[in-house]
Amino acid sequence: MGVRRRFHLAVIIGRGSDLIFSRASLLAFRRRGYNRAFSGFLAGFGEGADVSEASRFVQEIAEQSDDFSRWYTDVVLKAELADYSPVRGCMVIRPYGYALWENMRDALDKRIRATGHVNAYFPLFIPENLLKQEAEHVAGFSPEVAWVTAGGDDDLEERLAIRPTSEVLFLTMYSKWIQSWRDLPVLINQWANVVRWEMRTYLFLRTMEFLWQEGHTAHRTEVEAQEEVLRMLEVYRDFVETELAIPVIPGGKSEGEKFAGAQATYTIEAMMGDGRALQAGTSHAFGQHFAQVFNITFLDRDGERRHVWTTSWGVTTRLVGAVVMAHGDSSGLVLPPRVAPYQAVAVPIFRNEEEAQRVRGVIDDLARRLDGRVRLHADWSDHTPGWKFNEWELRGVPVRLEIGPRDVANGQVLAVRRDTREKQAIPVGELSARLPTLLEDIQRSLFAKALAFRESRSHRVGSIQEIVQQIEVERGFFYAPWCGNGECEAEVKAKTGATLRCLPLRGDGESGACLVCGQPETTTAVFARAY
Amino acid sequence: MGVRRRFHLAVIIGRGSDLIFSRASLLAFRRRGYNRAFSGFLAGFGEGADVSEASRFVQEIAEQSDDFSRWYTDVVLKAELADYSPVRGCMVIRPYGYALWENMRDALDKRIRATGHVNAYFPLFIPENLLKQEAEHVAGFSPEVAWVTAGGDDDLEERLAIRPTSEVLFLTMYSKWIQSWRDLPVLINQWANVVRWEMRTYLFLRTMEFLWQEGHTAHRTEVEAQEEVLRMLEVYRDFVETELAIPVIPGGKSEGEKFAGAQATYTIEAMMGDGRALQAGTSHAFGQHFAQVFNITFLDRDGERRHVWTTSWGVTTRLVGAVVMAHGDSSGLVLPPRVAPYQAVAVPIFRNEEEAQRVRGVIDDLARRLDGRVRLHADWSDHTPGWKFNEWELRGVPVRLEIGPRDVANGQVLAVRRDTREKQAIPVGELSARLPTLLEDIQRSLFAKALAFRESRSHRVGSIQEIVQQIEVERGFFYAPWCGNGECEAEVKAKTGATLRCLPLRGDGESGACLVCGQPETTTAVFARAY
Repeated sequence: MGVRRRFHLAVIIGRGSDLIFSRASLLAFRRRGYNRAFSGFLAGFGEGADVSEASRFVQEIAEQSDDFSRWYTDVVLKAELADYSPVRGCMVIRPYGYALWENMRDALDKRIRATGHVNAYFPLFIPENLLKQEAEHVAGFSPEVAWVTAGGDDDLEERLAIRPTSEVLFLTMYSKWIQSWRDLPVLINQWANVVRWEMRTYLFLRTMEFLWQEGHTAHRTEVEAQEEVLRMLEVYRDFVETELAIPVIPGGKSEGEKFAGAQATYTIEAMMGDGRALQAGTSHAFGQHFAQVFNITFLDRDGERRHVWTTSWGVTTRLVGAVVMAHGDSSGLVLPPRVAPYQAVAVPIFRNEEEAQRVRGVIDDLARRLDGRVRLHADWSDHTPGWKFNEWELRGVPVRLEIGPRDVANGQVLAVRRDTREKQAIPVGELSARLPTLLEDIQRSLFAKALAFRESRSHRVGSIQEIVQQIEVERGFFYAPWCGNGECEAEVKAKTGATLRCLPLRGDGESGACLVCGQPETTTAVFARAY
Repeated sequence: MGVRRRFHLAVIIGRGSDLIFSRASLLAFRRRGYNRAFSGFLAGFGEGADVSEASRFVQEIAEQSDDFSRWYTDVVLKAELADYSPVRGCMVIRPYGYALWENMRDALDKRIRATGHVNAYFPLFIPENLLKQEAEHVAGFSPEVAWVTAGGDDDLEERLAIRPTSEVLFLTMYSKWIQSWRDLPVLINQWANVVRWEMRTYLFLRTMEFLWQEGHTAHRTEVEAQEEVLRMLEVYRDFVETELAIPVIPGGKSEGEKFAGAQATYTIEAMMGDGRALQAGTSHAFGQHFAQVFNITFLDRDGERRHVWTTSWGVTTRLVGAVVMAHGDSSGLVLPPRVAPYQAVAVPIFRNEEEAQRVRGVIDDLARRLDGRVRLHADWSDHTPGWKFNEWELRGVPVRLEIGPRDVANGQVLAVRRDTREKQAIPVGELSARLPTLLEDIQRSLFAKALAFRESRSHRVGSIQEIVQQIEVERGFFYAPWCGNGECEAEVKAKTGATLRCLPLRGDGESGACLVCGQPETTTAVFARAY
């Protein structure tokens, strides 16, 4: 009955013709959840259809400020980036979310190739004994390993681990492939799925299975290996800042936060919309340790046999979550144009077939002129313009083009920015030239906005107490002098819930006494509560 | 000591200057395994280095005619397409093989998108109960399932299957996503790894883990679903014939060869270089059966709830093996230009730095002019030209460009086709224009050659006896009238080892009495021994 009443109301309001395209009434629509019912009616639906569709679309998302975590989950689910699967801790990456990931993957893959790396594919399984060859490594991962113990109807003699990461497989093969200095460096990357048995999972940010890229390299000298580790960290920084418009802090991890088995781990740390930190990518130096464990030696120029120096580096699908959390607002996703599945959506507005024809002419012509330079989606679905406005706002399309009969008559199109909601009438003839520029402008301002936000949430402190006081007000990054002692690091975590995110590569010149023990010999560390 | 003697000989023969670039002496070189030693010497190696490198490169591959299967394995391993891994039945796809797969994947992905499909990613795991919902399906796959029974240190309450295929996951989600006719069709594809617990494995053709693409679609009507099944079969045919230059026979599978749970299975069947058949891709119609099992209903235009009609279709990394087996020759791989990682390799020939400079000028200029239109690799490694000729022949690069000081002087380059070994001198100025044409020509002749081979190995027969006699002489495709009875099909297999590959969509008009029971009502079936 409730549905039916909504229904009639919707129709009445729907009769308000063009009125329904004003933002105010749109929001009113969304608040009251009418637009779906209205479109359902237009589409000549029975009540059943309206109910079923309403159940999918007539929904509010939580306010960011009230409950950031619920807001995030609402947006991921309702923008159809991902959905829960029948498997605990595993999600389905839906077409819209996967297209976003594919754009990220392709942009990063270009950079990985440009720095001389090649792709390959290594097995999903790792025999238990092989995984256990490196004690520290297995200690770090075995609590997270999914074990295959049966194949068909037979139990296996040796359990197979599903790769949590593939160091041991790559290095086992490298020991077979590398013979002389002329085989070096070996620079191989793989795009693959990995599994880590997480107890508390979170869409994109922490899932049992996730997609990632893992590079594994072997070098002749320590210097070359160290250059590689920092080269790939810089590739990640450039990729995340340029393509995802998310500013990051490149730095080293503390002993306590290092990758299992690594000599040194470097990271890029990003700030999410709630002031929490997110580790966006890591690059590891293994020295000759793994080479010794897996006996990877080469005959050097001077005829001496030496062990290689190895590295590994990776980023994962959690970056999709980072994009949502770094740019999203109360209306949903705000996607950076460079990776957005649709960079612009054209919403046709018409009251009859004759108007539809004229509008279609303009849209088809635009598509021709753009000729693939802009990923344009024309939404001809039989929903109301109002519903489409909400839908594509929720899904974060950078630019919405509203094209109605009056616009056609005036030879212009109304372009609406998703990030600022700024509207501008653009002459049809200039659209194909101005749209790309507008998208670049949006990309730039998303980065600038995220950077300004991070700076506003970054504080230099000299004591734990300052963090304690400040972090209760709002989360953020806390720059503090640290003596390098793990106990001091642990005390900060115990008292503030903030972990040591990184020791920034670009020091800020500041110094002082350790925020915990007061010892004068310190480096600057960034502390924050993190995902 | 043996190595050292070879060494000196190599140097002496090496002194034969340009002589060593003639094919005859090259083959002599390869037979005697000198060229590596020679290059090792040039590179100023100690004996150790020579031994280590020799062990990798100074190798013969088996003769196709003697032992096709060993020839295949030799080529896959020595061309570095793949290597055995520490995990039984799993291989490592090496960079050269993976680049080949990436080119195939991208070409097919374009076609899959062009027909309106989108990509997504579904979980690796399938809960045992979910997999068991469809009896026939699970019966077909459970003997091949790898089971996860422990996560971290805990045993699981319910076993998780590693996907052998993802019907049950896609359809479970579809039952949640599909509400009305307006949600249809749902056209989703995924590129992923799957696992089937194979006992007898074979590089690329049959591995426990393999990479593939699996499309899963849901439709409003039976007609639309049937159109989809045949549309994707045609996409596969066009892809395999156009990109891989392998002719295929599209047809339906018999009851006995159908996919577990399918109402009808369609296939494209290719002939390998030994006359055996290889199933290169399949497309399945499920009717409403899976929709009933997974309760996928939609509200139709008329307000009625109906079950959807589903399909699925896939091709796998076995296509890499198909390319090797369909085109390879006694010198190794012969790659179709459209998917070859390198379409042309430039081999510089010089005796001193001054000559090297002049040759480099020509190659760099060519690369500039080609501007990415041709995947050109300039091999400046410090091996001898002779070694490089062998290496890139073994690895199947379609065109080799030999560029020496005399060529530079004459303003020309010697282009050598990998498929026909035909040589032609091409003026440097015309190279960037003629190379693409030459590659298209090679692509066409590879297809024509494979087609002619298939026809020469295809026979129309009227009785099992004819197959028995013929198949002992040489393997091939046997077209025969078949009554449709599974017992007759089984008898052919029992007596000839040949299975029913398909019932060709394009009938050849011929008819006759069943090759087994003699019943007059028949359709034409293709029988062959298969991989």
